[in-house]
Amino acid sequence: MVSTLNKTDELKGQSIVISGGGIGGAAGALALSLRGADVTLFERAPEFKEVGAGLQIGPHGWRMLEGWGVIDRIIAAGYLPQDMQFRDAITRETILTLSFDEEFEKHYGGRYLVIHRSDLLSILVDAAREAGATLHNGATVGESRRTETGIEVDLEWESKEGPATFHADAFLAFDGIHSRHRHHLVEDAPVPSAYVAYRGTSKLQEDEAMKDLKSVIGYIGPHVHFIQYPLRGGELLNQVAVFESKRYLEGREAGDVPEDWGNPEELKQAYTHCSEFIQDRLDTLWTHNWWQMSDREPLLKLNHGRMILVGDAAHPPLQYLASGAVMAMEDAEAIAIFASDAANAGNLDWEQIFEEVSAERAPRCARIQTTGRFWGELWHLEGTARLIRNELFRQADRTGWFQYADWLWGYDASKREYLKDPSKGELPKEIQEWRYALLEKNREVNA
Amino acid sequence: MVSTLNKTDELKGQSIVISGGGIGGAAGALALSLRGADVTLFERAPEFKEVGAGLQIGPHGWRMLEGWGVIDRIIAAGYLPQDMQFRDAITRETILTLSFDEEFEKHYGGRYLVIHRSDLLSILVDAAREAGATLHNGATVGESRRTETGIEVDLEWESKEGPATFHADAFLAFDGIHSRHRHHLVEDAPVPSAYVAYRGTSKLQEDEAMKDLKSVIGYIGPHVHFIQYPLRGGELLNQVAVFESKRYLEGREAGDVPEDWGNPEELKQAYTHCSEFIQDRLDTLWTHNWWQMSDREPLLKLNHGRMILVGDAAHPPLQYLASGAVMAMEDAEAIAIFASDAANAGNLDWEQIFEEVSAERAPRCARIQTTGRFWGELWHLEGTARLIRNELFRQADRTGWFQYADWLWGYDASKREYLKDPSKGELPKEIQEWRYALLEKNREVNA
Repeated sequence: MVSTLNKTDELKGQSIVISGGGIGGAAGALALSLRGADVTLFERAPEFKEVGAGLQIGPHGWRMLEGWGVIDRIIAAGYLPQDMQFRDAITRETILTLSFDEEFEKHYGGRYLVIHRSDLLSILVDAAREAGATLHNGATVGESRRTETGIEVDLEWESKEGPATFHADAFLAFDGIHSRHRHHLVEDAPVPSAYVAYRGTSKLQEDEAMKDLKSVIGYIGPHVHFIQYPLRGGELLNQVAVFESKRYLEGREAGDVPEDWGNPEELKQAYTHCSEFIQDRLDTLWTHNWWQMSDREPLLKLNHGRMILVGDAAHPPLQYLASGAVMAMEDAEAIAIFASDAANAGNLDWEQIFEEVSAERAPRCARIQTTGRFWGELWHLEGTARLIRNELFRQADRTGWFQYADWLWGYDASKREYLKDPSKGELPKEIQEWRYALLEKNREVNA
Repeated sequence: MVSTLNKTDELKGQSIVISGGGIGGAAGALALSLRGADVTLFERAPEFKEVGAGLQIGPHGWRMLEGWGVIDRIIAAGYLPQDMQFRDAITRETILTLSFDEEFEKHYGGRYLVIHRSDLLSILVDAAREAGATLHNGATVGESRRTETGIEVDLEWESKEGPATFHADAFLAFDGIHSRHRHHLVEDAPVPSAYVAYRGTSKLQEDEAMKDLKSVIGYIGPHVHFIQYPLRGGELLNQVAVFESKRYLEGREAGDVPEDWGNPEELKQAYTHCSEFIQDRLDTLWTHNWWQMSDREPLLKLNHGRMILVGDAAHPPLQYLASGAVMAMEDAEAIAIFASDAANAGNLDWEQIFEEVSAERAPRCARIQTTGRFWGELWHLEGTARLIRNELFRQADRTGWFQYADWLWGYDASKREYLKDPSKGELPKEIQEWRYALLEKNREVNA
């Protein structure tokens, strides 16, 4: 399969160290190895695996996977839904259908795909290794420091013995939302959304009610949503139930948030205002585990010398735009492209490259994070606002919705659009205004 | 001018008594006199006059005024705006423009007109007299009772002497929102909206900021709106400021609503979140008087033997669809048409005619009343809901808005559409659902 990878050698002789072997780190290892860099990745866990279930990849991710030469493996492991349907969670009415048809493919130069997180990770890990990257388990990257010629990181080994430090030309911190490298740029904490997710996969063909499913379906309603789509060529049904936790909100009000906010007792009560169909589906979810959803405030600068914060470490989004994994892949690709261009120009200066990557990626990711928060609020509206939202979706259904998605799904890091025109990173004024209102609300709550 | 009226004689020999000489009563006197009926109207006030200022008449009203032969007088006294612009009250952005152009005129078979209330009333009163109606001031219609051949009403004279009773074939109660005849059909009370209106007219050409105004402009924002349009061929500027009264809401909560809710002190504070332009305009309004806005719950049956409740007496709406006067005119026209058709069929039975008028008009007016409440809520949204509303309006601006107005502005009483298909009177399900939510809220407040 190596033959399918698109390998070049602009970064030959460059040594890159990556912290974190999730989807972002593996994508980073792949993208940079494909440019000829000498990549070494350290992952704390004893093996490469992802918690969770399905993951959506829009055409912004598809085009990169195609460019790296792994799209065939991805297609073989994933599922190509015919469309994405937004439905009202109370009435079940389909209010907006995004058709993933030929027009879509032509418009975005890619398709829409869903895949099991662990399948995506193992394809990226395998491809990175095939491309020449060295991936280690059982080691965490600790503090980093500049050296005369590069950057040195400390290594903390879980069980086996290994070197205490590692030296490289550049360091990519792909170590997730609880990143231990973020403090170089900002002292902050994850921002809980008050929403919690329950997931589950099951055999699609054994599920009478769902066996003909060929779509991504999102039921959206007051304070809840519920997602369904096939995985693994239609073998599995993937479902996600997300709701606002009253325990969290009450705890926040009282200044004492219980650790188990969003527990299974809350799940049972959260959908009583929704269609019975959805209430019945909840029994098919896993209840031994649930995910309390958080993001962080956007970061305006990602780089610190020869270190750069990327993926969820830099800009963990809420899940509403289904772009978290793709954002990390975009970071990887931006670094690979900007560094290759610098090398081709005979000017391979990692500090300068990271400066540019930061200037390109920070506004792009801030926009995704903030728009994601807004998109979530839109899904969960109640009362009059919900009715207007439904009518707006119907309007978009009749008259076209590309206008709302182009900025997200049409992005290409090589165009350096945010770097060239920083105003592209400015949010539409309505969303800026909304964001301000949200921050005010949080300030009040924290005061 | 009599020559321009379109007079026929289907109702020759029929005696009609009307209570109330506002726009509805005058329209009733005109519409029925034009069919040859012998109409007598009693108005309590010593002269025919309207409080308030401007009034909007959509094409549903225009077509009737044209049919009665008074449209030339109406045009001469009124103003034909080029369009209606909805603007966000915070940003002043124009989010939706309804152009009153040739396409509009062709689509609705009529134009959009604004006119001073007192000008409309005097044109209708004069035309009704020209058509043969007898209009009295200083007398109120009291109780009514059936007789062997018709209906008898008591008369209460204010100062001068007059007969104690009046006998007619049919009785139209056009006596306004505080109707003393409504109790025959339902025991209820006006429903305060918590909104209050301030009005004002001034010389348009002396107003530097506004002198080029050719539109109806509606600024809509959280808990407020502000309307501007020219009147009297552009001589006057008409302005209306409407806001939600905190005094009313607090008083309702405490179970003790102060009589002066919505007072001028509140006006000054109600627009501080709006564009400075609007705040500055408030100084040009009258502050010696303000209007506490109320409507009533829809009535499902309007007739009681040979008496029928019509206009605001039957279905006072909130002002948001600018259709209150037209609804009363529609009532008048429906009675005139249905009675004429019955006479032509040799079957002039007033109880039966009023049965049909009620079956046609009650669902039509219920729809206007409830949609009007919804439309008001839409105007006054805040936060995320406001942003979505703005985007929905922009969408409608780009792709067409006739779909939202056809039911209102395309209505023709002679088609008997609600009578033939009662389901037309059912509200769109989103609005039914919203109405339910509103009633629940009121129930909670009253409990």
